[in-house]
Amino acid sequence: MRTLSKDLKAAVGKKVSIEGWLHKKRLLGGLTFINVRDRGGLTQVVIKDKDEVEKLRGLQIGTVLRVAGTAKDEPRAPGGVELHDASLEILVPVTEEPPIEIDKPLSHKPENLDTLFDHRVLGLRNLQETSIFRIRSELLRYIREFLYKNDFVEINTPKLVAGAAEGGAEVFKLDYFGKEATLAQSPQLYKQIMVGVFERVFEIAPAFRAELSATTRHVSEVTMLDIEMGFIKDHNDVLNMLQDLVYDVLVRVYKEHDEELKSLHAPELVLKPEFPRYPMADIHKMFTEATGKDTTKELDLTPEEEKWICEYAKEKEGCEAVFATGLPIEKMKFYHMAEDDKTARSADLLFRGVEISTVPQREHRHENLVEQMKKAGVDPNSPGFAHYVAAFKHGLPPHGGCGFGIDRLTEKVIGLANIKEAILFPRDINRLSP
Amino acid sequence: MRTLSKDLKAAVGKKVSIEGWLHKKRLLGGLTFINVRDRGGLTQVVIKDKDEVEKLRGLQIGTVLRVAGTAKDEPRAPGGVELHDASLEILVPVTEEPPIEIDKPLSHKPENLDTLFDHRVLGLRNLQETSIFRIRSELLRYIREFLYKNDFVEINTPKLVAGAAEGGAEVFKLDYFGKEATLAQSPQLYKQIMVGVFERVFEIAPAFRAELSATTRHVSEVTMLDIEMGFIKDHNDVLNMLQDLVYDVLVRVYKEHDEELKSLHAPELVLKPEFPRYPMADIHKMFTEATGKDTTKELDLTPEEEKWICEYAKEKEGCEAVFATGLPIEKMKFYHMAEDDKTARSADLLFRGVEISTVPQREHRHENLVEQMKKAGVDPNSPGFAHYVAAFKHGLPPHGGCGFGIDRLTEKVIGLANIKEAILFPRDINRLSP
Repeated sequence: MRTLSKDLKAAVGKKVSIEGWLHKKRLLGGLTFINVRDRGGLTQVVIKDKDEVEKLRGLQIGTVLRVAGTAKDEPRAPGGVELHDASLEILVPVTEEPPIEIDKPLSHKPENLDTLFDHRVLGLRNLQETSIFRIRSELLRYIREFLYKNDFVEINTPKLVAGAAEGGAEVFKLDYFGKEATLAQSPQLYKQIMVGVFERVFEIAPAFRAELSATTRHVSEVTMLDIEMGFIKDHNDVLNMLQDLVYDVLVRVYKEHDEELKSLHAPELVLKPEFPRYPMADIHKMFTEATGKDTTKELDLTPEEEKWICEYAKEKEGCEAVFATGLPIEKMKFYHMAEDDKTARSADLLFRGVEISTVPQREHRHENLVEQMKKAGVDPNSPGFAHYVAAFKHGLPPHGGCGFGIDRLTEKVIGLANIKEAILFPRDINRLSP
Repeated sequence: MRTLSKDLKAAVGKKVSIEGWLHKKRLLGGLTFINVRDRGGLTQVVIKDKDEVEKLRGLQIGTVLRVAGTAKDEPRAPGGVELHDASLEILVPVTEEPPIEIDKPLSHKPENLDTLFDHRVLGLRNLQETSIFRIRSELLRYIREFLYKNDFVEINTPKLVAGAAEGGAEVFKLDYFGKEATLAQSPQLYKQIMVGVFERVFEIAPAFRAELSATTRHVSEVTMLDIEMGFIKDHNDVLNMLQDLVYDVLVRVYKEHDEELKSLHAPELVLKPEFPRYPMADIHKMFTEATGKDTTKELDLTPEEEKWICEYAKEKEGCEAVFATGLPIEKMKFYHMAEDDKTARSADLLFRGVEISTVPQREHRHENLVEQMKKAGVDPNSPGFAHYVAAFKHGLPPHGGCGFGIDRLTEKVIGLANIKEAILFPRDINRLSP
């Protein structure tokens, strides 16, 4: 029977057997200490017996082994427990030294990111990296659990589509049995269609963007959460749902993964169940007054304003998530609904200084939609749009939704500097492997 | 306050308000009956008042409306309850007749599938179709819950990859900023790499196959569940895990969605916690004896044998899921592990007459793997494989895994005839929309 590192504390005084990777090896006062990594963490093993020490000769970090021994309390060891009287069995010998040292935190400095990703396959075995992606997996789980509880149905929509779904942004194109297909940038059209079926739907899936920019913010493949809900009064219903979701998920991850978040130096969470809501025009005024930099002529929030308003709300309201309401009509997309001739029924969710999601009501009235499409230069009868428009012609209720990147959320929760650090195997203009 | 159809029974005697789609309209004995569909099902509404009836003039199925009325017991109505003294408010008028009748089951006959998919956007509003995709969503939920309970971590691996991951089968290619990228056929290599990080991982994501065949079995985009687990004794550990997963998920869906499965004419579930296991060579013999058709020279099971052995086990063992063990070495892939020079450490899971999944142990020893790759004509140093091989060079424990299509599972659970019927918006050689 195999015992996991995390369960060793409960086995103190007993003979146990662990299995894992040789993670670290050192000599101290004539004794050999090794750390063994398994999915439950690290176990420190003390090896006295010369024959046992001999088994490790020439073996490198990564060697897979089984260790039998007695669990003893040891406050200085990881988990407060240590294995004594160890006998070793080598399961998979590794003789080549790893190209990176994985037993201490890896550098995430901008100038070292290429090295980080070049050695991703091994680097992910580092405990800090493991924590990042365990937290990411938990965020996914909490999000789904919230959505299930609230009657949302999970959908899988196609990623190979005819024509660029939302138009505008760069898309990847490919030959699809002689036709041209594009890789879906988002499930926008499909999730709206599906409101006509289930009212409330969500999808968590890859989305593809052929962004030519090579900044820290741009990756060409992201994991998107997409949500859409029908029978709303206006976009405030969606805002409220998203606020509840984000509050629920963030509070839970800080509660259940407190230790891991601390070890990653994640910022403390400052959140209230009701996020402050500021009209965008007010933010421009507040920012201008506070900083002396005039942004009152801006349409959208500037990156500087996004940071500022989150800091402001954190300090004044005790909440680092805010909604910026009243998106100027000039920034409205064809599938959004106008509030009046100045603003759209839409708000941005900002968290820790960046926009996480845009939360609009959709234009659900067939005639208005077709008109807005034409104005935007989108052909309602084209193969990419004809079916979408049909859903409206045959009745879609008032609805709205939002989408946000799981990568971005993970980045901001943990306080990483670059979205790519929150992606197992990131893709950008220069990187297609590993 | 809006009441959902499914909650109406609890509101008998009360004034309530429902919102949904006009799903059916008929006149009977001077009264107007309408069915209103919402995410909770159907509500039958009786309209007496002439002014209220007048509001529906010229309006078609799909019209979105609010109905206020009094809930009354009515055994002949859906859900055993009906709305009386109805007053209507039209939220979104629909004046165009739908191109298909969605208030009765849609034809899934092979010759009508194109019609089914051409009108998918509206057809999905049919209650039978809704049930199919609600069950699919539940299968996803149950699978994830089982895997979370068993310490599996969810991963998201890239779908844009360098080179064809597994080689062989047809792949979609695209231009990736001047390089050639392919769309991932499976996360095979990445999930094995991730065993080195989390030991147990899973992913549910789209996979892409440029299959030139236009049979009912071929779609070019599927939703795959992929599982991989480390520190196994041999492939039987994976078989046991998969057996527990499938048993747990199927029993649960039949328990919690009994009514919907019955309305879809799904076959009754005949399952035991331990699935019978037959060596493939024995199946050939048993089949040959039973039918007089000699299959003892076959390597793999023939489609006829797959059907036969499932029927056989269902009848003799009370279990319609079986494992066919001892895959002939000739069918082994380079990343599988050989048992001896005749068979691979692998088994097929068959359910209701078809192969659902192949469940092998992987070759985890670096040298053996490289040798098997070379034999298979795969270059271990190519961009698509170098990182994969590095994971082995630096220590991967004995591991194994499996993958199966969520589409196929949904198809077989419900008893559909074609995998495409279990996909919201299927993609094949001829179909790229809706």
